[in-house]
Amino acid sequence: MTPNPFTKQYLMTAGPTPVPPAVSQAMAAPMLYHRAPAFDELYERVLGRLPSVFRTSNDVLAFASSGSGAMESAVANLVRPGDRVLACAAGKFGERWIGLCEAYGAELVRYEPGWGERLDPGEIERLLAENGDVKVAFATLSETSTGIVHDVQAIAEVAARHDVILAVDAVSGLGAAELRQDEWGIDVVLAGSQKALMCPPGLAFASVSERALEYAGSRGGGRYYFDWGRTASSQRKGTSPFTPAVSLFLGLDIALEMIEAEGLDDVMARHRLLARATRAGVAAMGLELFGDPDERSTVVTAIELPEEVDGGKVPGGLRRLGITANGGQDHLKGRILRIAHCGYFGAFDILTSLSGLEMVLHQLGREVDHGAGAGAAQRVFVESAGADSIASSHREHRGKVAL
Amino acid sequence: MTPNPFTKQYLMTAGPTPVPPAVSQAMAAPMLYHRAPAFDELYERVLGRLPSVFRTSNDVLAFASSGSGAMESAVANLVRPGDRVLACAAGKFGERWIGLCEAYGAELVRYEPGWGERLDPGEIERLLAENGDVKVAFATLSETSTGIVHDVQAIAEVAARHDVILAVDAVSGLGAAELRQDEWGIDVVLAGSQKALMCPPGLAFASVSERALEYAGSRGGGRYYFDWGRTASSQRKGTSPFTPAVSLFLGLDIALEMIEAEGLDDVMARHRLLARATRAGVAAMGLELFGDPDERSTVVTAIELPEEVDGGKVPGGLRRLGITANGGQDHLKGRILRIAHCGYFGAFDILTSLSGLEMVLHQLGREVDHGAGAGAAQRVFVESAGADSIASSHREHRGKVAL
Repeated sequence: MTPNPFTKQYLMTAGPTPVPPAVSQAMAAPMLYHRAPAFDELYERVLGRLPSVFRTSNDVLAFASSGSGAMESAVANLVRPGDRVLACAAGKFGERWIGLCEAYGAELVRYEPGWGERLDPGEIERLLAENGDVKVAFATLSETSTGIVHDVQAIAEVAARHDVILAVDAVSGLGAAELRQDEWGIDVVLAGSQKALMCPPGLAFASVSERALEYAGSRGGGRYYFDWGRTASSQRKGTSPFTPAVSLFLGLDIALEMIEAEGLDDVMARHRLLARATRAGVAAMGLELFGDPDERSTVVTAIELPEEVDGGKVPGGLRRLGITANGGQDHLKGRILRIAHCGYFGAFDILTSLSGLEMVLHQLGREVDHGAGAGAAQRVFVESAGADSIASSHREHRGKVAL
Repeated sequence: MTPNPFTKQYLMTAGPTPVPPAVSQAMAAPMLYHRAPAFDELYERVLGRLPSVFRTSNDVLAFASSGSGAMESAVANLVRPGDRVLACAAGKFGERWIGLCEAYGAELVRYEPGWGERLDPGEIERLLAENGDVKVAFATLSETSTGIVHDVQAIAEVAARHDVILAVDAVSGLGAAELRQDEWGIDVVLAGSQKALMCPPGLAFASVSERALEYAGSRGGGRYYFDWGRTASSQRKGTSPFTPAVSLFLGLDIALEMIEAEGLDDVMARHRLLARATRAGVAAMGLELFGDPDERSTVVTAIELPEEVDGGKVPGGLRRLGITANGGQDHLKGRILRIAHCGYFGAFDILTSLSGLEMVLHQLGREVDHGAGAGAAQRVFVESAGADSIASSHREHRGKVAL
C-alpha cells in the first residue's frame, strides 16, 4: 500500500466528476470553427437538449466559465448597487452567494442557519415578510460542502408568494437531485458541466425565465460577458456571442445523449439508489452522517469521521490507495469525508469508496469490521430491484456499455 | 467537388485554430480533481510556463472563459463608472473594448481610425495630451478582423509618457506576433487558449503588472469571478479560486511544451515566414491585401476579394473543398477572405489555403493561372532558408513529429 505511480486511480469527487470514455473521445475530435455549419449543428443540438435536464421550456444560456461564472451571471444581471436581496447560505457554496452579492454592492438580508442545516422555507417566508423591499433571493439546490439537498420547491413557493425572483445554484445538483424548474416555478437555475452532466469543467449554464430576463433587461450596466440579454439574443440566432468552448460542447453532446438514453427519471432513480446504499454502508460502519440529510441528498454523502482517528489523514490515506475523495472544506477539514455519487457513478464506485474508507479507518487505528459497510451497501443494491436491474439500467451507448 | 461527409477537413481559421494531436490526446486523459496533488503539479507547471510566452515576470492569471472574458477582466478591474478611459479600435475586436468600457460605465475617449488602419501612436499621444484625466487605455495587438498587427511597443511608450495604464488584447496575437511585455512596459496583456497557444477555446489569461494589480485593488467592487486580486492571491497559494477547466490545462501543458521545444524565437520566425509566403502568394494571384498590413502582420492575412467574383460565395466554395476559412466580419462580409497562420500551422497549410482560393476563384468565374499563388509561396519557403529548414524547425515532440 505504498504510494506509487502505478496505483490505479479512482476519481470519487463531487466535481470534477468522472468523465465517461465516450465523452473524452468526442472531445479529442479535430477542432471545429464556431461559425461554420458543423459547429452550428452541434450548438443547436446541445442547446436543444439542455432544457429537458432542467425540466424547463426556457432557453438555457451557455457560458464558457466554471459554475461560479453562472452564479455571477445571476448576480450581475439581477443586482445593482444598493439593491436589497436575500442570500441563503448553509455551507460553502451558499456563502458564495453572499460574496457575489457583496461584490456587486447589494444590501444583504442574510439567512444562515449553519453548515449542514437545511434551509427552512418558513424562515425564508418570515424574512421576506419582514423585508418587503427584497426583489431577488438566492439559494442552493445541492450544497456540496455538506451533502444537503435543499427543498427548493418549497422555497420557490415562498418566493412566488412574495413576488420575489428566485435564483438557485444547481451546479452540483442538476441531473443528480430532482429539480423541476417550470413546475416548481423557479426563475433562474444555474448549473455547470463538471457534475452530473459528466463533462470536464469549463461550461456553465443559466436557465432564465422570461420574467427574470425582462427584469435583468431593466437593470442594465456593469456586465458584458455574462450579460443574459446578449447571450439570449445571440443563441436565438443560432450563434454564440463569444468563442464557445468547442471541445466541451463536443463532450456535452455525448453526455446529454447518454442522459437521454438512460432517461432522466432513471438517472434520478440511480442517484437515489446510490445515495441510499451509501447511507446504509455508513450506518453499518457505525458512522454518523454529517448535518441533516434526507432522501433528497442524492449528490454527495457527508460522513462525520470518528473521533478516535485523525480525520485530516483520511483523504491522504485514500489517495495512497488510488482513491481521490473529498474531505471537508474550511472548518469541516478533518471532520468529514464526502462520498460522491453525482454523474457517471455506478454501484461499484460506491462499494469502492466504502471499502477504501474501511481500509483507511483501520490503518488509522479504528477497529473495523471489514466488509460491513460495503456489505450493507451491496444488500441495498441487490434488494432494491435485483442486481440485474442495476446493470440493465446502464443502457448500451454507441455500441459500448456506458457504465 | 460536391459537398459530401467524406470530404477531408482542413481547419484554416484564426481561432479556434487547429489543435495538435498530442494536445487532443492529453485532454482525453481521465479527469483530475482540482484540489489533489496531480492537478496541483499540473497547475504549477502550466502557470510556471506561461510567463515566458508573454516575455514577462508577472504572474499570469488564468480564467475559465473565452478571450473576451479576459478582456472583460481588464475593464472590470481597471474601470469604475464615470472613469475617463481611452479605447483604441480599428476593427471588430478593438470595438469590443468600446462595448466593454461602455457596459462598465466609462466616459470614453474613442480613437477609431477605421477598419484596416494601423493605430497611430502619434494620434494616441495627441489624445492623451488633450485628455489628461485619462488613467487607462485599451488597445489591440493583432486585430483578427483585418489582419493588422499594431505597434503596441510604440503605443506603450506613449502610454508610459502619460503615466497611463495600457491594457493590450493579445488574444489572437500572443505566440504569433512579437510581444515583449516587460521590455516594452505593457501593464496588462490578455490572451486566450485557442489561437497561437494551440488549444481549444475555454481558457483565458491576464498578465498583470504589480502596478496594475495595485491600481485595480484600489478600485474595488462590481466583479468577483474576474477579480484579479482574488485570482492572483489564490494562484500564489498554488490553487485556482474556482474549478479550473482541467482538461484544457492538460492540453495547454502539452502545447506550452511544444512551444518551448520549438523555441519562442523560432515560433515567431515560423509565423513571419508563413505570413510572408502568404503575401507572396496573394500578390502572384494578382490580389490585393486588405488595409495596411506590414511585416508585423503574422497572425492572419486579409485579402481583398476581386470585384468580378461574388465574394460572399468564397467561404462556402472553400468549405465544399473541405477548407474552413474566415471570410470578413460585419461590413467586410463578402469583401475579404482571411488566411490564418496562427498557432499549429505549417507551410503546407498555407499552400492548401492558397490552392483552395485559386480553385474557388476559378469556379466563381475569375480567370486563374492555377498554381501561380501556391508557386510563389513555395518559392518563399524554399528560398528563405531551404526546404530542409522548414521541416527541421518542426521539432520532434514526444516521439512524434509535431507538424
